Amino acid sequence: MNTIKDRAADIAAAAKHEGKTVYNPEAAKPKNETPRLELQKESPKLVTLEEAIRKSGLKDGMTISFHHHFRAGDKVVNMVVDKLAEMGFKNLHVAASSLQDVHEPLINHIKNGVVTKISTSGLRGPLANEISKGLMEEPVVFRSHGGRGSAIANGDLHIDVAFLGASSSDPLGNACGYSRSENAKSICGSLGYALPDAQYADKVVILTDDLVAYPNTPNSISEHNVDYVVEVDSVGDSSKISSGAIRDSKNPRDILLAQNAAKVIINSGYFNDGFSIQTGTGGASLAAVKFIRQEMIDRGIKASFALGGITAHMVKMHEEGLIERLIDVQSFDKVAAESIKTDPMHKEVSANEYASADEPGSAVHYLDIVILSALEADVNFNVNVLVGSDGIIRGAIGGHPDTAADSALSIIVCPLLRGRIPCIVDEVTTLITPGSTVDVIVTEYGTAVNPRRPELAERLKKAGVKVVDIKTLRDKAKSIIGEPAALPFGDKTVGVVMNRDGSVMDVIKNIKG
Amino acid sequence: MNTIKDRAADIAAAAKHEGKTVYNPEAAKPKNETPRLELQKESPKLVTLEEAIRKSGLKDGMTISFHHHFRAGDKVVNMVVDKLAEMGFKNLHVAASSLQDVHEPLINHIKNGVVTKISTSGLRGPLANEISKGLMEEPVVFRSHGGRGSAIANGDLHIDVAFLGASSSDPLGNACGYSRSENAKSICGSLGYALPDAQYADKVVILTDDLVAYPNTPNSISEHNVDYVVEVDSVGDSSKISSGAIRDSKNPRDILLAQNAAKVIINSGYFNDGFSIQTGTGGASLAAVKFIRQEMIDRGIKASFALGGITAHMVKMHEEGLIERLIDVQSFDKVAAESIKTDPMHKEVSANEYASADEPGSAVHYLDIVILSALEADVNFNVNVLVGSDGIIRGAIGGHPDTAADSALSIIVCPLLRGRIPCIVDEVTTLITPGSTVDVIVTEYGTAVNPRRPELAERLKKAGVKVVDIKTLRDKAKSIIGEPAALPFGDKTVGVVMNRDGSVMDVIKNIKG
Repeated sequence: MNTIKDRAADIAAAAKHEGKTVYNPEAAKPKNETPRLELQKESPKLVTLEEAIRKSGLKDGMTISFHHHFRAGDKVVNMVVDKLAEMGFKNLHVAASSLQDVHEPLINHIKNGVVTKISTSGLRGPLANEISKGLMEEPVVFRSHGGRGSAIANGDLHIDVAFLGASSSDPLGNACGYSRSENAKSICGSLGYALPDAQYADKVVILTDDLVAYPNTPNSISEHNVDYVVEVDSVGDSSKISSGAIRDSKNPRDILLAQNAAKVIINSGYFNDGFSIQTGTGGASLAAVKFIRQEMIDRGIKASFALGGITAHMVKMHEEGLIERLIDVQSFDKVAAESIKTDPMHKEVSANEYASADEPGSAVHYLDIVILSALEADVNFNVNVLVGSDGIIRGAIGGHPDTAADSALSIIVCPLLRGRIPCIVDEVTTLITPGSTVDVIVTEYGTAVNPRRPELAERLKKAGVKVVDIKTLRDKAKSIIGEPAALPFGDKTVGVVMNRDGSVMDVIKNIKG
Repeated sequence: MNTIKDRAADIAAAAKHEGKTVYNPEAAKPKNETPRLELQKESPKLVTLEEAIRKSGLKDGMTISFHHHFRAGDKVVNMVVDKLAEMGFKNLHVAASSLQDVHEPLINHIKNGVVTKISTSGLRGPLANEISKGLMEEPVVFRSHGGRGSAIANGDLHIDVAFLGASSSDPLGNACGYSRSENAKSICGSLGYALPDAQYADKVVILTDDLVAYPNTPNSISEHNVDYVVEVDSVGDSSKISSGAIRDSKNPRDILLAQNAAKVIINSGYFNDGFSIQTGTGGASLAAVKFIRQEMIDRGIKASFALGGITAHMVKMHEEGLIERLIDVQSFDKVAAESIKTDPMHKEVSANEYASADEPGSAVHYLDIVILSALEADVNFNVNVLVGSDGIIRGAIGGHPDTAADSALSIIVCPLLRGRIPCIVDEVTTLITPGSTVDVIVTEYGTAVNPRRPELAERLKKAGVKVVDIKTLRDKAKSIIGEPAALPFGDKTVGVVMNRDGSVMDVIKNIKG
């Protein structure tokens, strides 16, 4: 006889050998006979926000995280922290990919001890003002997008519970930044900055205002990484993910800066068939893309990919066939958010796939050209995009130092002056992007090329670009504005700026008055 | 003054507080000025197979893994193990998602001590014959696809180095089972069974016969998870991923079985708008889909998704609008492999997202109906799909026990006899899918319903399905064939069958003669 009973001793021996138990058929769970459209409504993951928080095991002192894909329209941070305050939590670390004007309510949560630490890429508005003045005991830790991704991956930034807003999710947690349902309320496109959180956080809570039937595919966050799904009224106001549709700048200075930047790109040696590019959303940057587009058509060259925050402008050029692929860590407008939903060649990538210094394969390493903005640049080509000339935090690091460091050609487009504020200075107020990584600074008074790139300077001069010494630009600004007064910084460190490699690059002191 | 120099002490203090070093601008790497289309050719990941093996840190006694998406056309297992043998490695554990006839060369590697342990879902051909006869000292560990995914995720199956064939990859490791290049040599579609390996293995080596420019998006394996990329002549023969195009079975017994199965499905109570279904590739299974399709059209109902190994048949119904989404862990033919490349609603999922018992959100939990085959089923509804009636291993567990356990309705389609072999028996030779998870067994002599599902039996009887006692079917087989002789099993355990929960369910003994 060869029955299972006969084999019982062998089965027990095999189990011992494998270090496992013997299967017990009597303990088998009965079949769940409920039709699956019904069963998914009973998903064990589907809970209220309060239940999600309780079940997550969140405790005082732990780290919670958020993404900023809804930008000024985000509703998740305030909703969750309000609830945590109501539940009596204290001493929490808010690790957001960025924070905006809309997060003003955090001020009270900080005053009440609910939030005692913040990590972010940026700060703006009333919260930034208060923090700049010394609201918090613990300094805010600022990281670039790539730096945050690396810090999450290597454990420097351990997230206990991630609260991630999604434009749609099924009851199991397959979630994304768009929706195919008739009930779609909010869309944000790529969830790239939320993906490291989804992957590495101990517990992941999806909040969604569009709970759809399983399977919500294509999805960007997988049920594999999700512990709880919470249905809420609204996760964000899509109208605020951008300033709206593409508007070509009519500002003559922007046009001039754009023309200058385009001339640099076209004559840089990197403007060849198959090049790759990342641009920002500013008027000058968008206008530069317009000039580049025409030159691409004229020369018959195509880009292999456009990277980063993707705009409607880039989507248009992709659809025209001028850009083969879009690599999208953040959709900067509704057109981009719609495109990523339907176009397989418009790819969502995580912050790590986008800009991690630790990943040989992250996209920034294969980026030819990036056009970036600046609040200030200095004579050593250092750039500040975080702290205003008044000493108040009013920006975000974003992918600035990541793309500057890893691209073949980083171009800062920056007016010499903004009103009475000089933008080319002796030393930046706060060091965000080291000068060693900045190749060109384009102003309306001329273009400075980093002395580390003499061949590039030669190429540009030959092409008729007005190449000037950076100190000449600094002097020009000084001659118009005069020597700026020293800022009244105090003794308290309110912010710490991390380099993308995890070292500490600068501190921000409290501003008085 | 507010210079960085002035802040040096504060920066040092902040670094100490954060437990990090101070950024050293002097240590900054110089910019890499090479245009990126050139630079990617120098990708540090791009190495030969031998270099990948050396750099991976592979040592004697470690575990290497492979996927079986090229099925009988796979070339990666033999290529890699040949190389490892040549390099002098011994005592390796081959953890493949499945093994085929084509892996006969492993016999010599086992005899020579290069391979001393195997984990797999299935074994076929000469290798299976030899192992059945006692070739290996260590028994082969058999797991279901979901069980393998769980074991990899929970550490039961720790993979040191994964060697994963890909139909295309860029030099950074963005890889997939299809290609957009003119040089495409092999396609296999979904890489679902390779995804747990890519995610959890200590080191991941991509082998590809179509090295394309970065970024190879859309991709299923991300550069994030890849350590090395090896360009090879061929990773697989696409023509062997299936038996070819869809052929409607002309076998009258298949047609009869298909009609019976379709009748069960249609009258099961689960055939409602939005239902979900998984089917196999067998003649009866495909024919059943044909009957179901017509009934869906007649009744005006649609399926929310089809799951599992996806066939051209399912792609066709999806494109007709009868199946909203395809959830694809393995593309069973070229039509499916092409569809997954271009259709966003045809989604690739990992083995864990497909069938892990540990994931509340894995797809099998939300599967209404599955049609499965069997080598044998017994009077307790246990099913064997692995070991032939001659005691020789000749099959694969696949997703059989996963889908049977978690679906609302599992249907086994099985002839009463295959030639002189009875398929409904007293006890299965090897226990693969426990009877508690099997709801219906359809034969050409009648349909048996598991006594655990009395309401289902009632519904089917009412609809005119010929419901019979399973023992009646067993008796019928016996009356035709007679009592089969006991198999000449020996004392050596050659295989261990793990339940998907990680317990040991059965052993396979060596077969004599």
